[in-house]
Amino acid sequence: MADQLMLDENRFFDADPKIRGIAAKLYHSVESLPIISPHGHTEPRWFSENEPFPDPTALILIPDHYIFRMLYSQGVTLESLGVPTRDGTPVESDHRKIWQCFADHFYLFAGTPTAAWLKHEFSVVFEVDEKLTSRSALAIYDHIAAQLKKPEFRPRAILERFKIEVLSTTDAAESPLPHHKTIRDSGWAGRIIPAFRPDGVTDISRPDWRHNLAVLSVTTGLDISSFAVFIDALELQRRFFKSLGATSTDHGVLTPFTQELSKTAAEKIFQKALAGTADETEARQFTAHMLMEMARMSVDDGLVMQIHPGSLRNHNKFIFDRFGLDKGADIPQQTEFTKNLQPLLNKFGNNTNFSLILFTLDESTYSRELAPLAGFYPCLKLGPPWWFHDSIEGMKRCRQRVIETAGFYNTAGFNDDTRALLSIPARHDLARRVDSNFLAGLVARHIIDFAEAEDLVYELTHGLVKRAYKLDDV
Amino acid sequence: MADQLMLDENRFFDADPKIRGIAAKLYHSVESLPIISPHGHTEPRWFSENEPFPDPTALILIPDHYIFRMLYSQGVTLESLGVPTRDGTPVESDHRKIWQCFADHFYLFAGTPTAAWLKHEFSVVFEVDEKLTSRSALAIYDHIAAQLKKPEFRPRAILERFKIEVLSTTDAAESPLPHHKTIRDSGWAGRIIPAFRPDGVTDISRPDWRHNLAVLSVTTGLDISSFAVFIDALELQRRFFKSLGATSTDHGVLTPFTQELSKTAAEKIFQKALAGTADETEARQFTAHMLMEMARMSVDDGLVMQIHPGSLRNHNKFIFDRFGLDKGADIPQQTEFTKNLQPLLNKFGNNTNFSLILFTLDESTYSRELAPLAGFYPCLKLGPPWWFHDSIEGMKRCRQRVIETAGFYNTAGFNDDTRALLSIPARHDLARRVDSNFLAGLVARHIIDFAEAEDLVYELTHGLVKRAYKLDDV
Amino acid sequence: MADQLMLDENRFFDADPKIRGIAAKLYHSVESLPIISPHGHTEPRWFSENEPFPDPTALILIPDHYIFRMLYSQGVTLESLGVPTRDGTPVESDHRKIWQCFADHFYLFAGTPTAAWLKHEFSVVFEVDEKLTSRSALAIYDHIAAQLKKPEFRPRAILERFKIEVLSTTDAAESPLPHHKTIRDSGWAGRIIPAFRPDGVTDISRPDWRHNLAVLSVTTGLDISSFAVFIDALELQRRFFKSLGATSTDHGVLTPFTQELSKTAAEKIFQKALAGTADETEARQFTAHMLMEMARMSVDDGLVMQIHPGSLRNHNKFIFDRFGLDKGADIPQQTEFTKNLQPLLNKFGNNTNFSLILFTLDESTYSRELAPLAGFYPCLKLGPPWWFHDSIEGMKRCRQRVIETAGFYNTAGFNDDTRALLSIPARHDLARRVDSNFLAGLVARHIIDFAEAEDLVYELTHGLVKRAYKLDDV
Repeated sequence: MADQLMLDENRFFDADPKIRGIAAKLYHSVESLPIISPHGHTEPRWFSENEPFPDPTALILIPDHYIFRMLYSQGVTLESLGVPTRDGTPVESDHRKIWQCFADHFYLFAGTPTAAWLKHEFSVVFEVDEKLTSRSALAIYDHIAAQLKKPEFRPRAILERFKIEVLSTTDAAESPLPHHKTIRDSGWAGRIIPAFRPDGVTDISRPDWRHNLAVLSVTTGLDISSFAVFIDALELQRRFFKSLGATSTDHGVLTPFTQELSKTAAEKIFQKALAGTADETEARQFTAHMLMEMARMSVDDGLVMQIHPGSLRNHNKFIFDRFGLDKGADIPQQTEFTKNLQPLLNKFGNNTNFSLILFTLDESTYSRELAPLAGFYPCLKLGPPWWFHDSIEGMKRCRQRVIETAGFYNTAGFNDDTRALLSIPARHDLARRVDSNFLAGLVARHIIDFAEAEDLVYELTHGLVKRAYKLDDV
Repeated sequence: MADQLMLDENRFFDADPKIRGIAAKLYHSVESLPIISPHGHTEPRWFSENEPFPDPTALILIPDHYIFRMLYSQGVTLESLGVPTRDGTPVESDHRKIWQCFADHFYLFAGTPTAAWLKHEFSVVFEVDEKLTSRSALAIYDHIAAQLKKPEFRPRAILERFKIEVLSTTDAAESPLPHHKTIRDSGWAGRIIPAFRPDGVTDISRPDWRHNLAVLSVTTGLDISSFAVFIDALELQRRFFKSLGATSTDHGVLTPFTQELSKTAAEKIFQKALAGTADETEARQFTAHMLMEMARMSVDDGLVMQIHPGSLRNHNKFIFDRFGLDKGADIPQQTEFTKNLQPLLNKFGNNTNFSLILFTLDESTYSRELAPLAGFYPCLKLGPPWWFHDSIEGMKRCRQRVIETAGFYNTAGFNDDTRALLSIPARHDLARRVDSNFLAGLVARHIIDFAEAEDLVYELTHGLVKRAYKLDDV
Repeated sequence: MADQLMLDENRFFDADPKIRGIAAKLYHSVESLPIISPHGHTEPRWFSENEPFPDPTALILIPDHYIFRMLYSQGVTLESLGVPTRDGTPVESDHRKIWQCFADHFYLFAGTPTAAWLKHEFSVVFEVDEKLTSRSALAIYDHIAAQLKKPEFRPRAILERFKIEVLSTTDAAESPLPHHKTIRDSGWAGRIIPAFRPDGVTDISRPDWRHNLAVLSVTTGLDISSFAVFIDALELQRRFFKSLGATSTDHGVLTPFTQELSKTAAEKIFQKALAGTADETEARQFTAHMLMEMARMSVDDGLVMQIHPGSLRNHNKFIFDRFGLDKGADIPQQTEFTKNLQPLLNKFGNNTNFSLILFTLDESTYSRELAPLAGFYPCLKLGPPWWFHDSIEGMKRCRQRVIETAGFYNTAGFNDDTRALLSIPARHDLARRVDSNFLAGLVARHIIDFAEAEDLVYELTHGLVKRAYKLDDV
């Protein structure tokens, strides 16, 4: 039937029968492996409280910037999609109406990963058997709403049902991690771990910096009035995160610029920041120095360091003023790694105890800078295609440009980087398919043989990610 | 026969039989649709006067910089190709001899879009049935020359024969558009519309700026001695262009840098420019401010704004001094959109009445900047691959890097951007084939289904371009 | 057998049967053509002395930075691989043990060109019939060691056996070329020619600059105490290189920045450099000026000029301090050609006697800058994908981005750029296969016809490289 929602078993594989046949075999060898999710943005609260998720619109649409940025680009206002305003100005609250609007515009997503993920989520997770159209919208809404009330759709049950072996959240450095503590104390076997993200306290140009610092003081019980104590507080919190299972830190910076300051210079900028008088250049130097400090701490405590550079946040002031952060208005810019990372790599990069995973939004750096760097420095691994590039063609471009120089073993497997828990199975399935297909292309051209491909598809699914994020070290 | 000129019916489609089959079906559904040509550089005079075109060399070779730049790169002088000099120094005038030289070098174009377009033009437009070789050169010359004398090869007949539904020229902002007026007054049904291109009066660093400004004064009857009157004159001319059917403006700038100046600052630079004392920085600021002004006017009058940045004009001084503008010596350079366009997008980008179409010569910006921007700002659409990238592989790269983030509906369909009227059917046919093939690849991999592809191939051929350029709004 | 080393006869061709069939036919037409190697880093001493090569580890592993950078990236120390230290600190000297370590890690190279080259080298050159594994490592070592003792594995025999028609080394400008003289005087028919590389004397920021200049004084017998005499010495050496068969020069620069200095300014910087007081800006200007001087000399003496820009040398100070130059720590950075080369191209680029071959490590410049430049300036040809991009996917990307704008005839065929003599047959075979496959893709899509492809595959193998490097001009 034209309206039936069916996922083809060979979806995302090349049309060529030889490649498709090999790809299918490789995919079947990893299809049912547990999911490893070492980097993402789900809420730890979901798993500590284990309450039912809200309705389909609140769960699937309103928090997903992939969805509302596309609708906004075509003239649908964020208010009409129920995105909450900062000042509390009321927005559309009829969630069935919002869902209908989304369904009316679902054709906009043709050819995007969002469409691929949602079709998988609808079909496999919620057992919807009709395509999402204007006509089917509300029936599907009601079907999903009913599913969400069942016990098997509670957060912990979802985790178990989809064999998510480990799931890392991302947490502010200053957080006391109450939900992670509750989860640990609950005796539940699920492995939900935090990741240490200090941007809120290392970027002195943020309007909320002093607030975040105050929270860090409270959490650590330290009076953070000097740079030295600030460093102590961060080291303390890293130990605390580790005690709750953390294996990594994450750093979102505009550029990967690194530079070591003298203690005196760092202290001086820190004091100016406390006094609210630090300028932009000082903020840039401070962030560069804090990346050096974080690398040093990683050498000491073994936490894997992740750098996510190159996103110019809140490009659209109108949207930021009205709706706040993370509303789809983060736009990539050119990124330079070779010179920016040289100080950090020269100081720590030859240390085999140090592990640094790099991400990029600037694909021109894959073959020019990232693969040559990762194919040389012992500390480096390349993360999977990030954000806009977490897609079928994006993954293919990354592999084509990286592997010949860096090999497979200097990459870090897949991660989903999502706040949409129910899309996790879809995202990992898509990645496994694209990896299987890429390897099949190498086998068909006799670049590798089938036995090598079998090893590699397992590595790309499990081996590389577990080792890169030290997830077997428990 | 080895020497027979034959266009394969499946040309440009993938070799894979599954993809090829789907591509052919999609192509046949749009193959015969009328041509929409919203951006180009044909001469309005052709259609007002409707005289026969000159001989093959004067029509096809001498004005085509794709052709003579390739021949020049291989040591053929522009003089020997009949390209006129600025100072009137005589050049080769035997057009049969020039044609022979071109045919002798036609092998240089193997694998280029020029070869694909010319083969289509020879075969379909002129019904040539032999390949162009040294041996066949003059027979083909004579055949085409004879065709050009027939009534069905006059400009208006060509337009009708190839179903060119609308054709936009590009016209200096200061032009009184005499030919467009003549065409309108002639009662002929063909739709030839102007596009408003103000670079000659907004770029104060041009040697001909004061001359262009003087023409603008004459055309508008305004004494343009102040920035305020300059703005009035531009607004007046935009209304005049609209009255003759214009739906768009076009801006060729070195960078898409935008920045708002105060009225006082703008006036000050304008006065310095009039006095001939403005420096390079001021010229850059003035151009940046004029893009803001043009966006503001577009919000007011609804003309669609196009920006074509990133071409360093007249790279080769020797060629420029001897032969002048547009002699193939324009070379692309790196282009930055994210920060450069932020002021303009913040001021006008959330306005759904504003429509801005972006082009690039720097393909690294497709996935890094352009797709993320177009997938978010309501005003933005991405133009088709421009100039050097208007080619089979160029189109494929653009789709592969743009669609997953921006979707199809934030793109603006195809345009031919050509001064070669007789290549227009070839260029649109090639684009329809490449689009059909791209969609077929998605269908074969079950990323979209065939019904979606059918809708999309129509959109890429007609729907998107008509809406993006407001061509149905008449 | 799973452990048998077999090279599939259709390796590196697309899986599609139509493309594969055409590719195989094209490949067979050039498979046995002699090898032209116009740019590389083999030792002329090998051919003057014609001694047996040392053991497999000393020959194949220790000098190959592709190999040890990958092993180093995965935690294998350079000491354990036998890479000699600058201060003579002892390193691993058991070459069988090093070979075993390499074999244990050979899986890291899956999907890299190193694996493809080595498999060819083992199979075709050394007639190894087992895959390299931990288990087979020492047997293969012993087999190759035995082969190397045979007369047919001496350098001159290798050259003849693999039909290497011409082989260019790369030689310091100040070299007296003793081995090239010995080869010439020996009466042996092999064509080993030098290439003139003046970086050591044109880059005044190098620590060894004054030493190199002193050698140049000795070699030329000139007292190089002024810029004018420096220029005389270079011209003298170029004539000397030519007399020993050189047809080209090579310039490794951080950026392709060119700028002409007045004689006075050049002399002033030269004197400061002699006094050790020139700063970084002056060094940059001097290098830029020397590129202009070298272009001028090329116009005079006809030597083909090659520019290899964009590699930041010795990125890893630890490795540089301990092991010295060329240890895999050279990392690419962004490169700009359009503006940097404009002075040189404006002064010499329209001269058909001048020939300039450009290379890049920044693939974003292929379609944006290099193809548009090469498709216009008569002097320009594009070199093959360089270094990290000398690979299956790298070659494909280069062709896809360059050919549509520049055509095939503005490229310079293939060169291997290697110091690994025994990999030369493998590298040329891979390039011929990838070129055949690329052309087959064009034939299958009816972009070119089979007869054109036959001409082009010959051109890509012989015609273009011989003309670009003036190798037929003897």
